Amino acid sequence: MEKMKVDLNSDIGESFGAWKMGMDEEVLHHVTSANIACGWHAGDPLVMLKTVKIAAQKGVSIGAHPGYPDLMGFGRREMKISHEEAKAYILYQVGALAAIAKSLNVTLSHVKAHGALYNTAAKDEGLALAIAEGVKAVDPSLVLVGLANSQLVKAGETVGLKVVHEVFADRAYQPDGSLVARSHTGAMIKDADLAIKRVLRMVKERKVEAITGEDITIQADSICVHGDSPQALEFVKKIKKALLEEQILIQGI
Amino acid sequence: MEKMKVDLNSDIGESFGAWKMGMDEEVLHHVTSANIACGWHAGDPLVMLKTVKIAAQKGVSIGAHPGYPDLMGFGRREMKISHEEAKAYILYQVGALAAIAKSLNVTLSHVKAHGALYNTAAKDEGLALAIAEGVKAVDPSLVLVGLANSQLVKAGETVGLKVVHEVFADRAYQPDGSLVARSHTGAMIKDADLAIKRVLRMVKERKVEAITGEDITIQADSICVHGDSPQALEFVKKIKKALLEEQILIQGI
Amino acid sequence: MEKMKVDLNSDIGESFGAWKMGMDEEVLHHVTSANIACGWHAGDPLVMLKTVKIAAQKGVSIGAHPGYPDLMGFGRREMKISHEEAKAYILYQVGALAAIAKSLNVTLSHVKAHGALYNTAAKDEGLALAIAEGVKAVDPSLVLVGLANSQLVKAGETVGLKVVHEVFADRAYQPDGSLVARSHTGAMIKDADLAIKRVLRMVKERKVEAITGEDITIQADSICVHGDSPQALEFVKKIKKALLEEQILIQGI
Amino acid sequence: MEKMKVDLNSDIGESFGAWKMGMDEEVLHHVTSANIACGWHAGDPLVMLKTVKIAAQKGVSIGAHPGYPDLMGFGRREMKISHEEAKAYILYQVGALAAIAKSLNVTLSHVKAHGALYNTAAKDEGLALAIAEGVKAVDPSLVLVGLANSQLVKAGETVGLKVVHEVFADRAYQPDGSLVARSHTGAMIKDADLAIKRVLRMVKERKVEAITGEDITIQADSICVHGDSPQALEFVKKIKKALLEEQILIQGI
Repeated sequence: MEKMKVDLNSDIGESFGAWKMGMDEEVLHHVTSANIACGWHAGDPLVMLKTVKIAAQKGVSIGAHPGYPDLMGFGRREMKISHEEAKAYILYQVGALAAIAKSLNVTLSHVKAHGALYNTAAKDEGLALAIAEGVKAVDPSLVLVGLANSQLVKAGETVGLKVVHEVFADRAYQPDGSLVARSHTGAMIKDADLAIKRVLRMVKERKVEAITGEDITIQADSICVHGDSPQALEFVKKIKKALLEEQILIQGI
Repeated sequence: MEKMKVDLNSDIGESFGAWKMGMDEEVLHHVTSANIACGWHAGDPLVMLKTVKIAAQKGVSIGAHPGYPDLMGFGRREMKISHEEAKAYILYQVGALAAIAKSLNVTLSHVKAHGALYNTAAKDEGLALAIAEGVKAVDPSLVLVGLANSQLVKAGETVGLKVVHEVFADRAYQPDGSLVARSHTGAMIKDADLAIKRVLRMVKERKVEAITGEDITIQADSICVHGDSPQALEFVKKIKKALLEEQILIQGI
Repeated sequence: MEKMKVDLNSDIGESFGAWKMGMDEEVLHHVTSANIACGWHAGDPLVMLKTVKIAAQKGVSIGAHPGYPDLMGFGRREMKISHEEAKAYILYQVGALAAIAKSLNVTLSHVKAHGALYNTAAKDEGLALAIAEGVKAVDPSLVLVGLANSQLVKAGETVGLKVVHEVFADRAYQPDGSLVARSHTGAMIKDADLAIKRVLRMVKERKVEAITGEDITIQADSICVHGDSPQALEFVKKIKKALLEEQILIQGI
Repeated sequence: MEKMKVDLNSDIGESFGAWKMGMDEEVLHHVTSANIACGWHAGDPLVMLKTVKIAAQKGVSIGAHPGYPDLMGFGRREMKISHEEAKAYILYQVGALAAIAKSLNVTLSHVKAHGALYNTAAKDEGLALAIAEGVKAVDPSLVLVGLANSQLVKAGETVGLKVVHEVFADRAYQPDGSLVARSHTGAMIKDADLAIKRVLRMVKERKVEAITGEDITIQADSICVHGDSPQALEFVKKIKKALLEEQILIQGI
């Protein structure tokens, strides 16, 4: 019988110029994949270079994390861009990171859209296809990471990319599989033990209880974790320990 | 006996968002190489995509034209960036354009720095090496275009890149081979016939008269021409006609 | 009996850095109010300075034209900014232009939001109030210009600002008084004579035929005209001539 | 006999978007003047609004801290901008902050250029005059803060502004009164007790020992201190205590 497996991914390289963000070195000890910002919502060429270097040293899978052209809003504000723009923006950002990675003999393994671009593409079929086409045009062997069961992973499959369904340990789900918006009560799962229990169930049973109480089916290829605080790092260690105790293989994209 | 040859290059793709600049389609009828802005001093992902497309249709050699991060100053203001930054900025911009080109099955042939970055690197050995190393790290088969006899072409040779010495038909030269700054009297050769006579001599005899009156040696692998006005286009046609009449082969990078 | 009157306004100062846009000097011969971009979707400090100077020479009313922080999209793409952000962005942009105007002994008379910010605020009460509060906080004597009958002019009245209802000669209206989106068939009134007939009726009778055929009531304090092409300028001259023939006073904000 | 007095100033409001920088609230307990970034090298409208608010609550003198248009380089990289551009950039940034301050019923007291703009203007008479003229054009009652004895304070006096000579506790001086560049050995005074001894002597005797060993005359109207780390804060407390023990009045601009 094949062993169950899952990826642990984290968004890193989110410093910019003189501003530092995230505990990248620390979180890289624990994850198996890293998504690196590409200079539009966070990151800059020097930050990208340093981030690829430390991620490569840890041996994690390295991917691009492109976002909206909104540094001031950290890519978290929806922008009504056209599909043509979305595709071109993906080409630009992924290409920039790919060249920086190439200078260090590193090949990108995957692409995960950031923030509001990720969330909008989860529901908007046209935007999702534009992103998927952009990723494919850069390199058809890139894996597309999207919210589990979302339009984005569907679009990836439609254009012929390998896809990864991503789940969140600390977020509540709607019955349709979408995330409960952060602004709503109950959106965040604050109890670490409950969060871990939910994650284990998603990985092992492909089920999670939605905020309405009903069980929904969810595919958990990769779990998103954070390294923005010491508490976040503690949680990453806990979740990793729990997965290993359950004999689940933790493997990069 | 091998026929003499020279390249005609032009900086294109300098529109940005809602702003149009240059008569790209028209100038592409006449040149053999095009240098495309990469979004930092001019250009944006959509403009880059459209520009690569029309340049590819004309069959010209397509190169990247990276610049300082200064959109408001069009990359024409010197910035004291570090060598580390310069190299990373080259990787970023050339990589972004390379991916956009790849989406159209186009491979970049060359890189030419823009504006103040070009001029500063012509004289600053360390900056020149940083740029050359950046270009090589993206793709060692890329040709580096720099001011004839400058530190930039020397740096290209040092790191093992193929280089192209570029000359200007409409600019006066200092005895050391550098360009007379635009702000000085006599910096621009306004007489089209004189400009053409000078270009022909540079290509055929490798000589040009400096602003001081003395002859200097200059290698003219490529001539920079402009497409920013109907008059500029007329001049391009004239120079092309003169080169062909002299049996000089006009060939892309 | 008081004479009927209306303002003719135009968006100017939309050049940026090396990029020129619009025929500002020409359109300023014909309008009575000018809305000047503030550097976020268009314009830069030097452009703003030059534009205030030429507008002041023509004696038109000078206002600020703040937009979304989206230079690449020319402020035409909706962004989901918070009300707190909207108010702060208005303060920033209007304040910047006010200081530039002050250096030329010019006082701003009004504020008109640009592009997608204008359109979104026409329908979104909260955003409209945030903008109105921002304008009032800079200077309570500033006039707020908004789409006729929109949430934006209502918000201006709510906070106690003088408001101006703006109409468009070349745009079709929905029965609710909103503009038909540019992407829809029939959105643009291309027949100049029809456009002028509609404008005269709006000014004189406060009526316009909506795209559905029914008449709606509309207040036309100011008519928006464009100076982005020779044809646009011709239309401005025509509309001005028609207003004068009807004894309508054309007067700035 | 009039009591000796000096101002303690700190650069604050240097967060941007999602990125936090500096311990603004803490350092505001100890200083008498605050220089607030204006969105070009650091800060954004929301950060500016929050920073003015907390500075006003502490009762410190509030000033603008304009910089080069270089967010990625934090305004620390010299840019060859024209004098016309420099003046317009000052108008823009100071005007933006002034409007934000006005919305909170706060009036700006001073302007201090940031980073490379400050350092370049200390030596470049033309740039210094452009900055001084910009400040005066916004409001002739604004005080111009510049490096003690520099071209910038001279320019302020030339145009008729009140000026403040600023000194640095932790930096070595050249015999001509300029700062030793950070890249040189001995540029930073790392011994806190020595730094305080030097500051007291500057304030009381108008003398400081240059890096060459000779004494130079220096006017210390204001001392620049930092709030970017707990250690920096400790030093601010120490310097304040030492000034008070010497019966020196600490008073805002």
